[in-house]
Amino acid sequence: MSSGLKVAIAGPTGAVGHALLQVMAERKFPVRELVLMASSHSAGSTVTFEGESLTVHEVTAELFQGVDVAFFATGADISSRWIPVAVAAGAVAIDKSSFYRMDPAVPLVVPEVNARDLEEHHGIIASPNCSTIQLVVAVAPLIRRAGARRLVVASYQSVSGTGQKAMSELETQTRDVLAGKTPVAELYPRPIAFNLFPHIDDFDLEGNTGEEIKIVRETRKILGLPTLPITATCVRVPVFISHAEAVWLETEEELGPAEAQAILSRAEGVQLWEGNGYPTPLDAAGKDPVMVGRVRRDPTVPNGLVLWVVADNLRKGAATNAVQIAETLFGVGT
Amino acid sequence: MSSGLKVAIAGPTGAVGHALLQVMAERKFPVRELVLMASSHSAGSTVTFEGESLTVHEVTAELFQGVDVAFFATGADISSRWIPVAVAAGAVAIDKSSFYRMDPAVPLVVPEVNARDLEEHHGIIASPNCSTIQLVVAVAPLIRRAGARRLVVASYQSVSGTGQKAMSELETQTRDVLAGKTPVAELYPRPIAFNLFPHIDDFDLEGNTGEEIKIVRETRKILGLPTLPITATCVRVPVFISHAEAVWLETEEELGPAEAQAILSRAEGVQLWEGNGYPTPLDAAGKDPVMVGRVRRDPTVPNGLVLWVVADNLRKGAATNAVQIAETLFGVGT
Repeated sequence: MSSGLKVAIAGPTGAVGHALLQVMAERKFPVRELVLMASSHSAGSTVTFEGESLTVHEVTAELFQGVDVAFFATGADISSRWIPVAVAAGAVAIDKSSFYRMDPAVPLVVPEVNARDLEEHHGIIASPNCSTIQLVVAVAPLIRRAGARRLVVASYQSVSGTGQKAMSELETQTRDVLAGKTPVAELYPRPIAFNLFPHIDDFDLEGNTGEEIKIVRETRKILGLPTLPITATCVRVPVFISHAEAVWLETEEELGPAEAQAILSRAEGVQLWEGNGYPTPLDAAGKDPVMVGRVRRDPTVPNGLVLWVVADNLRKGAATNAVQIAETLFGVGT
Repeated sequence: MSSGLKVAIAGPTGAVGHALLQVMAERKFPVRELVLMASSHSAGSTVTFEGESLTVHEVTAELFQGVDVAFFATGADISSRWIPVAVAAGAVAIDKSSFYRMDPAVPLVVPEVNARDLEEHHGIIASPNCSTIQLVVAVAPLIRRAGARRLVVASYQSVSGTGQKAMSELETQTRDVLAGKTPVAELYPRPIAFNLFPHIDDFDLEGNTGEEIKIVRETRKILGLPTLPITATCVRVPVFISHAEAVWLETEEELGPAEAQAILSRAEGVQLWEGNGYPTPLDAAGKDPVMVGRVRRDPTVPNGLVLWVVADNLRKGAATNAVQIAETLFGVGT
């Protein structure tokens, strides 16, 4: 469409890049022209968008000329090098990497929660980590109503959060175990087939992992609660797609499970599973809503609630959130 | 050996019964005579103990004559019907089922924690639920030193907790998924291959599952802290053996991670993984210690600690604990 946007995607061949192309097509994101780019080792490959085969180019400054919005489905190394180039060329960059997330000059946005922060951008908008996105979509409506005192989170995170190679590693190891062979860990520090480990990203000096620190810091920034006490244990599990979280929320004011369910039943981006109903990773895979179930009282603290939160980490946890940011910025889409 | 005990095992063909025979052999539990019994549908089958093939008999009152100790690796239905018969015949019954656990007249024992409670028995001793046993072995030494204010637990529980049929269901479903077929849930409410769900045992009126309630009530009874605030979310994961738990412990007095690690490094039944080290289910499978790793500070509350606790649910979570109870009672064994 001649009235659409010139869109660039850096990293279209990875798990998130693939989801990004799919989500843009599904949501009829108004693409006038699509430029695909990657580092030299993925350049030359082709990907399909709306039935058309497109070539991936090696990233150069020239490719960003005239681009309206550039999605970076890349790691911090590529994002940090090329986002300044994209912005200098006049594009708005929406970054999935962790590089800019905690930069005070960069909005960190989940549109259902803090779309207003987009007003402050200077060319770069960061999309949060997958485990943070689903957490804030679920708890923000409750916190808006009753305030927040503390959050405790235990996560159950799928291998697609690491990327396509990790999905292959889970499959290969699983076939090996079923064939009676010893699984060999390559990408991960331990076997993941029929196993799990509380080790996502590196450890800091206090013994927290990078993933746990991201949940703490990003959640505080998105909610605008810079001192909210949050503690997390993040665990990689042998699931292909979707992350789950057991969440304990302590609110400032009394908020019973019935009222919490009423709030969540009409909250934007949330699909409530009523009563004892609960979503599983398989239920959420390929879907956009953040699914919340088993909303119950935690009787061990004043104003305690327990929630079970599941979302597709490649879609709402990454691609869908990035596309929603672009839709909000440009006033387009659903 | 003529000086040993006459031992009965009810339920020797299940996952726990199998582990029980293995643990008794490994620990050289002094068996003079071994009587194996089961309900009519398992009667007639044979199992191996120390290289010898033994026939499983249909349970009758006569079989308990002269038995010193009867292990019940059975469900509440068989235990409730036959334990009174075993006790009337003069045996001491050690029960893995949930039936007697909360009976005030029945000690609920994890020998490392409350062996003293064995003095009060009237012929029946209950062994706790698997997820409770590993939790109390890990936290009791810390609570003995610094008291307890609150426990928060998120579990990652293997399918062997449900039994051998569930292990087959995980394997069959996994093969189906890898072959491109849709997995069919039979035993479980949802597919378990490459999936997980927060649903172990039935829901109560407050929306907690039976497994979550067991952790709360059994932990309080074993620790002798009848009002300790405990909240849990229990999740079934696609792992064959061993349960893992993310645990947040708030103590009464200050107890830093370094001191907690020092206490755990010499605690009975605990294997400490120092610093950022962590056990996985594969590390614990086939072993007896309760493995504890990633001991770190929870800075969001006064005196907060976070632990990662893993144990073989069939061994320390069931068989080994039962054998240890018998060893303590009869003053035998390691």
